[in-house]
Parts: sequence; structure tokens; C-alpha cells
Amino acid sequence: MSIRDQLFQILEAKEQEMIEHRRHLHRHPELSFQEENTAKYIKSFYEDKDVKLTQPVQDAHAIIVEIDSGKPGKTIGLRADFDALPINEETEVPFKSENEGVMHACGHDAHTAYLLGVADALIEVKDQLTGKIKIIHQHAEEQPPGGAQQIINSGALDDLDEVYGIHIVPAVTPDTILYNKNNAFSGSSTFTLKINGLGGHASSPHKTHDAIVAGTNFVNSIQTIVSRRIDPLKMGVVTIGAFEAPGASNVIQDSVTIKGTARYLDAELEQFMYQEIDKIAQSVALGFDVTYDLDYTFGYPVLYNHPTETDNVARVLSESKGDYFQHLMEIPPVTGSEDFAYYLQKIPGTFYIVGSKPYDVEDPYMNHHPKFDVNEDCLLVAAKSLTDIALDRLQ
Amino acid sequence: MSIRDQLFQILEAKEQEMIEHRRHLHRHPELSFQEENTAKYIKSFYEDKDVKLTQPVQDAHAIIVEIDSGKPGKTIGLRADFDALPINEETEVPFKSENEGVMHACGHDAHTAYLLGVADALIEVKDQLTGKIKIIHQHAEEQPPGGAQQIINSGALDDLDEVYGIHIVPAVTPDTILYNKNNAFSGSSTFTLKINGLGGHASSPHKTHDAIVAGTNFVNSIQTIVSRRIDPLKMGVVTIGAFEAPGASNVIQDSVTIKGTARYLDAELEQFMYQEIDKIAQSVALGFDVTYDLDYTFGYPVLYNHPTETDNVARVLSESKGDYFQHLMEIPPVTGSEDFAYYLQKIPGTFYIVGSKPYDVEDPYMNHHPKFDVNEDCLLVAAKSLTDIALDRLQ
Amino acid sequence: MSIRDQLFQILEAKEQEMIEHRRHLHRHPELSFQEENTAKYIKSFYEDKDVKLTQPVQDAHAIIVEIDSGKPGKTIGLRADFDALPINEETEVPFKSENEGVMHACGHDAHTAYLLGVADALIEVKDQLTGKIKIIHQHAEEQPPGGAQQIINSGALDDLDEVYGIHIVPAVTPDTILYNKNNAFSGSSTFTLKINGLGGHASSPHKTHDAIVAGTNFVNSIQTIVSRRIDPLKMGVVTIGAFEAPGASNVIQDSVTIKGTARYLDAELEQFMYQEIDKIAQSVALGFDVTYDLDYTFGYPVLYNHPTETDNVARVLSESKGDYFQHLMEIPPVTGSEDFAYYLQKIPGTFYIVGSKPYDVEDPYMNHHPKFDVNEDCLLVAAKSLTDIALDRLQ
Amino acid sequence: MSIRDQLFQILEAKEQEMIEHRRHLHRHPELSFQEENTAKYIKSFYEDKDVKLTQPVQDAHAIIVEIDSGKPGKTIGLRADFDALPINEETEVPFKSENEGVMHACGHDAHTAYLLGVADALIEVKDQLTGKIKIIHQHAEEQPPGGAQQIINSGALDDLDEVYGIHIVPAVTPDTILYNKNNAFSGSSTFTLKINGLGGHASSPHKTHDAIVAGTNFVNSIQTIVSRRIDPLKMGVVTIGAFEAPGASNVIQDSVTIKGTARYLDAELEQFMYQEIDKIAQSVALGFDVTYDLDYTFGYPVLYNHPTETDNVARVLSESKGDYFQHLMEIPPVTGSEDFAYYLQKIPGTFYIVGSKPYDVEDPYMNHHPKFDVNEDCLLVAAKSLTDIALDRLQ
Repeated sequence: MSIRDQLFQILEAKEQEMIEHRRHLHRHPELSFQEENTAKYIKSFYEDKDVKLTQPVQDAHAIIVEIDSGKPGKTIGLRADFDALPINEETEVPFKSENEGVMHACGHDAHTAYLLGVADALIEVKDQLTGKIKIIHQHAEEQPPGGAQQIINSGALDDLDEVYGIHIVPAVTPDTILYNKNNAFSGSSTFTLKINGLGGHASSPHKTHDAIVAGTNFVNSIQTIVSRRIDPLKMGVVTIGAFEAPGASNVIQDSVTIKGTARYLDAELEQFMYQEIDKIAQSVALGFDVTYDLDYTFGYPVLYNHPTETDNVARVLSESKGDYFQHLMEIPPVTGSEDFAYYLQKIPGTFYIVGSKPYDVEDPYMNHHPKFDVNEDCLLVAAKSLTDIALDRLQ
Repeated sequence: MSIRDQLFQILEAKEQEMIEHRRHLHRHPELSFQEENTAKYIKSFYEDKDVKLTQPVQDAHAIIVEIDSGKPGKTIGLRADFDALPINEETEVPFKSENEGVMHACGHDAHTAYLLGVADALIEVKDQLTGKIKIIHQHAEEQPPGGAQQIINSGALDDLDEVYGIHIVPAVTPDTILYNKNNAFSGSSTFTLKINGLGGHASSPHKTHDAIVAGTNFVNSIQTIVSRRIDPLKMGVVTIGAFEAPGASNVIQDSVTIKGTARYLDAELEQFMYQEIDKIAQSVALGFDVTYDLDYTFGYPVLYNHPTETDNVARVLSESKGDYFQHLMEIPPVTGSEDFAYYLQKIPGTFYIVGSKPYDVEDPYMNHHPKFDVNEDCLLVAAKSLTDIALDRLQ
Repeated sequence: MSIRDQLFQILEAKEQEMIEHRRHLHRHPELSFQEENTAKYIKSFYEDKDVKLTQPVQDAHAIIVEIDSGKPGKTIGLRADFDALPINEETEVPFKSENEGVMHACGHDAHTAYLLGVADALIEVKDQLTGKIKIIHQHAEEQPPGGAQQIINSGALDDLDEVYGIHIVPAVTPDTILYNKNNAFSGSSTFTLKINGLGGHASSPHKTHDAIVAGTNFVNSIQTIVSRRIDPLKMGVVTIGAFEAPGASNVIQDSVTIKGTARYLDAELEQFMYQEIDKIAQSVALGFDVTYDLDYTFGYPVLYNHPTETDNVARVLSESKGDYFQHLMEIPPVTGSEDFAYYLQKIPGTFYIVGSKPYDVEDPYMNHHPKFDVNEDCLLVAAKSLTDIALDRLQ
Repeated sequence: MSIRDQLFQILEAKEQEMIEHRRHLHRHPELSFQEENTAKYIKSFYEDKDVKLTQPVQDAHAIIVEIDSGKPGKTIGLRADFDALPINEETEVPFKSENEGVMHACGHDAHTAYLLGVADALIEVKDQLTGKIKIIHQHAEEQPPGGAQQIINSGALDDLDEVYGIHIVPAVTPDTILYNKNNAFSGSSTFTLKINGLGGHASSPHKTHDAIVAGTNFVNSIQTIVSRRIDPLKMGVVTIGAFEAPGASNVIQDSVTIKGTARYLDAELEQFMYQEIDKIAQSVALGFDVTYDLDYTFGYPVLYNHPTETDNVARVLSESKGDYFQHLMEIPPVTGSEDFAYYLQKIPGTFYIVGSKPYDVEDPYMNHHPKFDVNEDCLLVAAKSLTDIALDRLQ
């Protein structure tokens, strides 16, 4: 029996165990940077196994498990994140969150579950492999600056040749795998702009510096970032999510607070958008006699799926199509953000999507919804596809 | 002794009584339309006097006191308002408000006090006069639609030939009287504009109708009402006091609420500004695929001081200058609103200002401030000036 | 016979001569700063008269004629301007302009004609007067910086106690005199703003700095000068008269040229508007990555009719009402500009208006129109009113 | 010898002839729809050859040459355009344009030259082929609505199974072929918007409807088409190329003329952009009391390179790489327009690029420049690549 057949047999045998892991984690979700029990649960899983387990980030819960074949070869990273969200679960599942206000509404419970399955299988056959696998159980994906950057900075992945990861998304059912290449998931930044003018009586605007009028001019002018300043062939968005100047109709406000976000699919736009937003804020301050405080936070960068590794994944998976899943589709870039982007800034690899839509639902609740639900068939598909890829890289 | 000398002698004798009235009212302020005890206090003042007292507005506290000379002649109205404001008094006066959260912070206590003095004096000498005086104790000036309109609508003033009123203002001390002619106090309207778009994800603006962007376009465009659409020689203001679209940086809002006010010094602009604001809201709705609800309230109209009557008042007062006050100044229009405007829409007359600034204060607290204070010397000045005018009109 | 009667008798006798002067000048108009023959014509008029004639401005055509009573007293200035406009006359009058493209379309021919009449009369009776009269025949009113400032700067009027002038305006017929007080004629400035961006292909805006978008942002933002930055009780206008960016639909422009004007009725706004316009241009340059050249020219300042002198003129004229004219009206400020403003910055006085509307015309052609026409009855009314005033000031 | 070897031998033998064709056409350029002599020249080329030549478009110069193998099989179209541009040539080539003001500055001379070579070779071996080839010599590519649509509408291509075309571009040298897939060349539309207001005096904006202010508001608002209304992942541009409101600083304009263009890479955006531009024009008209005339012309649509045919071309060419050219690159979409798009709306196929940059030039003059120059080595590369593709499709 080929190694692949052995591995898939193990995974099939462990499917129910993966489901149990996922449900346990779902019942006990923990917020980003606070995943103490989740980490304990994962560590206990590896307790008696022949691996080297490390926790590379001080005061955080990341776990790296090294599976060493003992033979020379590549070192391949496989990553799953394990933190949950500050959302109050509204599903009716029997393993509903027991932590009020915290929920695995983004599928990280499933990510961790199938990665435990993959690790289990690889450990079992490791003597037949070459090189090493590093299983990366990552904390704090949901909250920038995120866990990925901390793990990278620890040096624990300096020896990786390639890195792979999956997100489950209920856009499609588990028989479908989606992938994309190059700039694949958008980068995002957020900002809060406080404009400070000088308030006063509604009937005496000349004695004031009207912060609302300055603020609306800012919103107006930033439209030109996307309409005029960015290559039309490149994706860019600047959205103002909040314009806060509450008050009475007859008083001119002292200040307004504007909150927004920038999204982009080219690394160079990350800095460019900040510069343009700051420049326009500065120009509004000059022109409308106000001052401003711009609190600008760079979020996760653009996630770049390396073309060679992505093509290779596409090849591997297209060979398995019809086996444990039916559809493989290349999709356009996605306008969400992922801190897997940090790994791919340093290490070749790709990040792809396995469907998790329940079979009988037309319009499923998407990630981050309090009624988000997972078709657990995705666990085996994800596990097998990741195993397929690892095997390909290590042979 | 001339009637004027008699009247002034009476007023001087009653100065302390006027002060007592004012302090009593100050201690017991009542909100607009709720001035029950204030009305009782005023009525009890007239109880044994030879006048005809009526309450012309059903379910409201207005009091009209007719002083009839028994001889033919003009009928002259003298008006003072008596309601207080929802302000928590912060002065240290011994007769501080005993109604928590309610305060005579606009001087209506003083207005009523000197008008009681004037009425007292005129009643005493009425047989030496011709025509009639109607003393108008008005309720609810502070809260549009206000008491003046109700009194006018009651028909109780249909027989007035002229009407006069005073406001005390601490811009100057009581030795100074200010007046202005023609369009004298600005009219004002207020509005709340709700713009309803369609919210969504920050990264998918094309699936939304961005209410913030539509709202900022509205604020931008209404600047042209004053800059381009109104005669530059006419006073006009459109102020946005609130722009309410609170939220997160990464969500496009469904709707925004914009509150504003329009001010103007020409009656024709009242309707014009409404039309332009509505037209621009309509155009923004069309151009940005949103809908809107415009809740527009016409406030008090422009107060028009009739030129003939104002010139006459100026003449009368300039003859008294150096007697009970020292300075008489014609001033430009004032950007506040007053429901005395409704009387002057129907009846010739004028509304002028007596100083009430404390002597030793450089930068006094203005009307509507929780520390607003009154120099009670204004009571006698106001009373004498109003008596001067009434006497002139009735002889 | 009183001096006034003598003077009026002379003026009546000279009415036809004034008409002849006016028609001669109308036939031979000369542009501002080029009024050589006009000046010769005026000088020849005074040739044999007992006056002191000077030309105080080097290389310009101003003429000052001093009429000295020989007795102590005030020195009063009476001014008329004599330049014409670059307009091609389209009237059918028999004395139509013989200088193609040049026309007395603003009535300066009439101004000069009646002032010659007034001078003639005053010279004849000068021994009966006290003090001195300075007849100011001013060049170049139509073209800023204008002649008035040059005459003032020459020092030739340093001894004036008061100064008076008239403009004829066909808004009303010659039986009507109009006056106003304080800030009476608006000041104006003009500007040309060149915005320099970087042009390019329509499909690559990101490689350009779009000057049209920067320019429209400028036009948009300057609306707030009038709507938010100026006292609503004060008159202010900023008008963009030209926005020049001609070209093809598919090329982004390098630059745009914007021309505009500011108008104001308060001296302090002259500088303020410049500052705000420059500030906004600067802010647009910063925000849109363009540079700008702002060529800003202060035109004639606000014309301030001194209240004491104006009240006095109103008194003098109201005493003559019913005699040589029928209506005297105080009017609101006028939104035109006049370099008489410079005299009034230094010397007390007033500038007023005599009607010149033809009798049988409902909708007359206004000043500066190629069909502008003058009702010559205005000459005698203007001459008599100015004589009335001079006499009053010198007695 | 294989057919391919035979064909390539013929093409190599005819290289000099292709060069001569190109130079002849370059010397005698003709404007779109006026290509009379060009058509004659092409027709004379085919005179004695065994083909069926038709001119399917009445009153236009399109020529279709059918090469029939006599055997069943596919019918493949190969197209080259032959019109020139209204540009005055500024090169120093010995075969410089002899038609003043007209120039082959876009390489259509080269397009025609290599297609004649390809036709020649295919005619020679046609008995060894199956199916048919239609050689499409197209008129009027440079001037919308263009010749392609006329040919399609004639029905002359109804039997085509596939269609292929090439553009030469001096971005790269002739050793490089570029291709792209799906939406490949942007669609474009142009518009002229006339905004009609009401002019007047600069100082009386309230008596006017200021067309410049309405126009700047339009420019401002259309920024939101790209910034808010289009999918950020889709390419869209709206550029204002001209804003024409020339005039004096002190007159408010009656009207402004705004010219612009829209570019897009999705067929559905063609209509959408028109709707949004019209909607915003309509909203500006409503909000600023002006009227508008929008003259909107849909230009060439988005050129869609069919994925199957493009992949096939990529495969064919990658097999020839290293033979007659060295580099094959997939490129992102291009922001130019081409009426080849009309063929691809009806017929599967692809349109690709052969480099034409002179070898010794770093920064070449691009298409449509008066100094545009062609590296004639591109002729053989283009001819061989097109022959490769035709052969692949017909075997």
C-alpha cells in the first residue's frame, strides 16, 4: 500500500476523532491571545507522540510540533489557527459555546481539528518520509497585529522551505476546493481621524472653525484616492465606516471623529494609501483652519500566494479531483484579510479554501455570523488535501 | 405735575416691589406651557385693580389685562413673556431657582416684573389718559411654536393699534438702550435629514448605497445656498449642527442623520431656504441612490421692527436720554429669534433692548447660560422707557 | 438775490452749454490713462478764468482747478471723472462716438459736463463765498489701480476738508436722487489661479496629477468662504467667472486656469478674502499634488460714505426736494465699485447718485452697455445738487 | 517536409516582400473610411491568385479573401486592419508618409503586410489543408463605430469557427509575444456634457444659476462612480479631459462644456457607467437649477479573449518558443481599446501582441506618436505565429 493510501486510511479512521476535537473546541472557545485551555488541549493531544513540541512565542499560546523523518529533505509548514471571536453564538448545535460572548464563528475549531488529524497520520508514517513537517498551531489570528507575525519573529520557522494553510468557507460545499494565485487576499488598514475645529453658535459660523464642514470635505476628497490616484487595474477601496458628530441642530461642533478602512491587493498600496489619507487630512486642516489626529493602523498585509507553489498545489489537487472531492476552481482575489500573509512574505507557499457549506442550505450564514455553521465533511477533505500536498513536497 | 412726572414718581416708588416680583419669579421658574403658578401670581397681582383681565388661550397661561381710560383713542399693547428654561441654575443668588433643572436664564422674570410695575402706574393714572392699554403677559416664548402665535390667533389683540416689547440683554449696562429697525431679529428654522442608503461590507461598496458619502455630498452642496443662491446683501446662514453616523471602521452604514438650522433676516428667505434644502436633498437622493426624510420645522419668523414706530420710539427715547439712562444706540440686526415677531406681522410696533449687565463684570454670562445674572437697575429703566412710549402713543 | 439764487440762475443759463460739453466729450471718448484730448478740452474751458489750474499727476491727465474766495474757510473738493470704456457704441445718437471701440458708456461725459457748469457758476460768485473749492477732474476711473489713488498720492488734496461726487445711474429718472451711508459701494478684487498638475492618458490617472479635479475641488471649497467664514451680517461674494481647461475627452490636462472675483462691503474683508482664497489654493495644492500660481489684484476698496457728511447732504437735499427734483431716497449698499473710495479713505465726504433714465423707457440699458443712454436733464439736477452742497459747506 | 516547414520556408522567402508592402502602405496612408488606394493595392495583390475575394460592406473598403482547401473542416478568420491616423509624421524614414497630416502611426501598415505574407503562404499549400481560411482586411479601426462592426453585420463572417488577430506594440522587441485572457482590452466611451445655467453679474449670484459651480459639483460627484459604485476588483476609470468655461473674472457663465471618457474591463460596466454619469448629471441639474445635454458615445466594447482559444494559442506558441521568437508572456489586461472586440463578441478566438520595438532604443515612441517607428523583424514573427495558429486549427 502506498504511503498516500496508508495516510488516507488513517485519516478516514480518525474522521470521527477530528469531529470530536472540533466540537470540543467549539464548546470551549477562547478569545485571541487568551487561548490558554485551547493550547493545553492541543498539547495534551501530542503528549505521548514522538514529536518535538515547542511554544516559540513568550506569553502567547502558539505551539509548533516538529515531525522529523530523520532523513534529509525539505521542511514543510502546515498551519491552522485556534482563536475564537467575541460573538455570542446563536446556533442550536448541541456543542454550542459555553463561554458566553465568545464563539468559534470563523471555523478555527475545524482548522485545528483537521490539522490534528493530519499531524496524527503523518506522525504514524514519518519513517517512510524524508525531511520534516512543522505543524503550526497558531494563536490570535483574529486580532491584529495577530499571532503569525509573532511566530515568524520568534525565528521558529526560519528553516521552513514552504508553508501551506487552509480556510474553510461556507460559500461552497465540502466537495469543492478553491484556490487563487499571486495577490490573493486583500490587505487592510484602519484609521480614526479626529478633526478638531472650534465650535460655537449656529448663527455665527465666522467665529468658529466648522469641524463638520472640514470632515465632509475630507470624505469628499478621499474619493479621489481610488478614482484618480491608484492604477485602475489594481484593487483599492477606502471606506468611511463612521462619521461621528452628534449634537443639536443649532450648535456648531468642536470636533468630528471619522473612522475608515483601506483595502488593497498590492503590497505597495499599503503605504501609499496611508500617505494619501494623511496628505488629504493635512490639506483639509490647512484649508479649513482645523487640526487633526490621524490614528492609522496597518492591518494584515496583502496575502501573496506564490505562483510556483500554487500551481503545484493546483496540479496535486487536480490529480485527486474525483477522489475525495469533486470540484477545483481558480477564483479571483478575495477582499478579506488573513495573517497567513506574514508567513508568505518570508516563505513560499499558498493558502487555499475548502468549502464548508451545509448541504441543505441555500443562503448559508457566512464567517463571523452568530449563526455560522460548519458542514463537518469538510474536515476530512481538508485533511486529505493538506496531506496530499505535504506528501508531494516531501517525496 | 405732568402725567409723566406722576408715572415716573410711582415707578420709582415701586422699584423695590418690582425687584421683589422678579426675585419671586426667579425662585419659582416654570417651563414653557407649564407656567401655572406664574400665571396665578400675576393674576393675584391684578386682583383688586380696576382692569379687565382675560386668559385668551384655552389650556395655556397667557393673561391680558386691559387698562381702559374710558375715553376714545388708540389701543396700545405692551408685552412681557414669563416662561423659563430647562437649565440648571449655577448662580449663587439668594433667590436661586427652587425648581431643579429649571431657570429664568433669559430674563423673563425681569420682563414680567417691570411690566407689572408699568401696569400698576398706568392703572393709577388711567383717568388722565385716552384710549386703552393692553398688558400682555405671554407664556411659552422659549418653545416654538410659542405663545405669541396662540395669543394672536385668539383674536384678543385684534383691536391693537401698536405693540411694544423689550428684551434685557447683558451686553451693556442698564444705562444703555439699543434699538434697530426693519428686519431686526433673524428668523430660524431647524431640520433633521435622514438619508437612507444600503449598508454592507467596507470592501464591497458597489453592493451598497453609501449613506455617509451621500450625506457629505449634501453638506457640501448646501454651502452654495448661502454662497450662491441668496442675495449677498441679505443675511443667511445654513449650519449643520450634527452629522450622526456612528459605527465601526469596516462597515458601510445604512443611514445617516443630519441636523441643521437655517437663519435669515428676510421673510421671503424662510420659505426659500426650505425649498433649496429640500431640493438639494432630493438631488442627492437621485444622484446617490438613496432615499431621504426631511423633517423641517419653521421656527420664529424674522422680527420686523416697523420703521415709523421705531423712529418714533427713537425720538421719544432720545428726548429722555440723560434722564433715566445715558446711551441710545441704533444697532445692526441681531441673529437671535423672538416670537414677538408674530405680533409685528400683524400690528405696527417695535421691540428693543435694555442693558442688564452687572456693573463690575467685563465678560458677563449671556442669556441661556446657567450663570446668567441680571443687574436689577434695568427694571426701572425698562419700566420708564415703556411708560414713556405708551404715554407718547396715548396722548 | 441770495447766492443760491444767483448760482442756480447761472446754472440754468448754462444748461445748454453743459449739454454741449457732454455731447462733445461723448463724440470723442478716450480710454483710461489716454485722455489727452479730453484734458485739453477741459483746460481750454478754464483758460481765461480766474482760477489756479494744476495737473498734479505726472504722465497722467488729472486736472485740479482751485477756486479761491480769498477768505478763510473750508476747502471743499468736487470731483468728476472723464475717461471712457473699451466698448463699441451701439446707440443711434447724433453725437455717437467717433472713436471706434471706445464709448462713454458709464456717463463720465455727463459727470464732467455738469462739473464744468458747477465750476463756472462758483467762479462767477466766488467773491461772495468763504474758503476754497477744488474742482477735481479725474482721469482713469475705469481701470484699476485708477486715477483717484494717484491724485491722492500726489498730495494735491491734502488740504481738503471734505469731498463730494456724483454718479449718474439710469435706474431712476433725473427727478430722483439716491444716497446711502457708511459702507456704500462694495470693494472688489480679481484673481487668476493657475493650477499646474501633470497631464497624461485618460486611462492612467495614477500617473498624472489631475489639474481639473484639483481645480473643481478648489471651486467647491471656496464656497465655504461666504457660507462659513464671513459674518452672515456682512456682504461677501466670491464668484468664479472662468474655468479654462479646454481639450479632448481622453487626455488628462496639465493645468487649468481659474479666474474669479471677490466682492465685499467691509474694508477688513478685502485682505481676509485674499488670505482665505490663497489658503484654500495652498491646501488644494497640498492635497492634490499640484502647484499653483495665484495672481491676485486688489481692486477699488469699499467706498465708505461718512455718516456725518452724508446726513448733512441728506439734510441739504431734503430741503431742496420739490424744487429742482422730487424724490430723495436712502438706498441699501450697492454692489459696484468706484475709486472715489480712495478719497473717502482720507477725506470726509459722500458720493451719491442722480437718476439719468430716459423718461419713456421702462427697462433702460444700464452703465457699461453699448446702448447706454443718458437723460440730459440729469445735468442740471446734478449741478444744482452739488452747488447746494458746496454752498452749505462754505457758508 | 511538413506543411509547417513548407509554410515557414515560403514566409522566410517572402520576408523582403512583406517589408516592401509595409513600406508602400506607410508611404501612402489613408484615413479611416477613406482607404480607397489601400484597398486597390490589396486587391491587386490577390489578382491572379486562386481565392474568392469579396467586399462585404457597401461603400466601405473591407476585403475578405477566402482560401478554400476544398475539404471539410473549420473556417478560421485571420484579421488585419489597414487604416491610418490624422497625425503628421515626424520620423526620418525614407518611406515617410507622402500624405501630409496622415500617418500609419499605429502599425496597421505592418499588420496588413504580414497578413498578405500569411495569405500568400497559405494559398500556396491550401491543397494540403482542410477547411477554409478567411483573410479579413479590415478598414477603419481607428474611428468608432469602426469597420469591424460593419463587417460582422454584413454576415460575411457568419461561418467562422474562430478568429485571430495581432497588434504590434513597441513595448518589447520582436522576439517577444504577449497574450492575455478573458477581459483583455478595455472598452471605452466618450461623452460631452453641456450644462446650461443662467449667467449674470459676478456680484449677483442669486440672480443666476451658476453653471461653473454646477459643473464642478458634477466632476466632484462622478469620482464616486469609481470609488464607490464599481466592484473594487474590476477596472474602471472616468476621466474628465476638458472643462470649458472661458471668460472674464467678473461675469457668471451661462454654460460650461465638460468632456470625458469612461474605461472599463467588464462588458456590463459599459452601460452601467453611462447610467451613473447620466444619473449624476440629472441630479446636478435638479440640485443646481440648471439643464444639461449629455452626448454619450459608446466606443469599442471590452475585448474578451476566449479562454479556450487563448489557452490553445498559448500552447501552440509555447511549442514554437525558441524557434522564431524567444519570450512568451501572459500579461494583465491592457487599457487600450480595439474593435477586434466585436469579432470576439460573436466568434471564439483571441487577439495577441507581437513586439515591434527597435533594438537599440530604450524608451520607444509608442503607438499614435508622430515618431512611432516599427522594427520590421516583427513582420516575420507575426506571420509565422499566425501561421502556426491557423495550421493548428485546420489540422
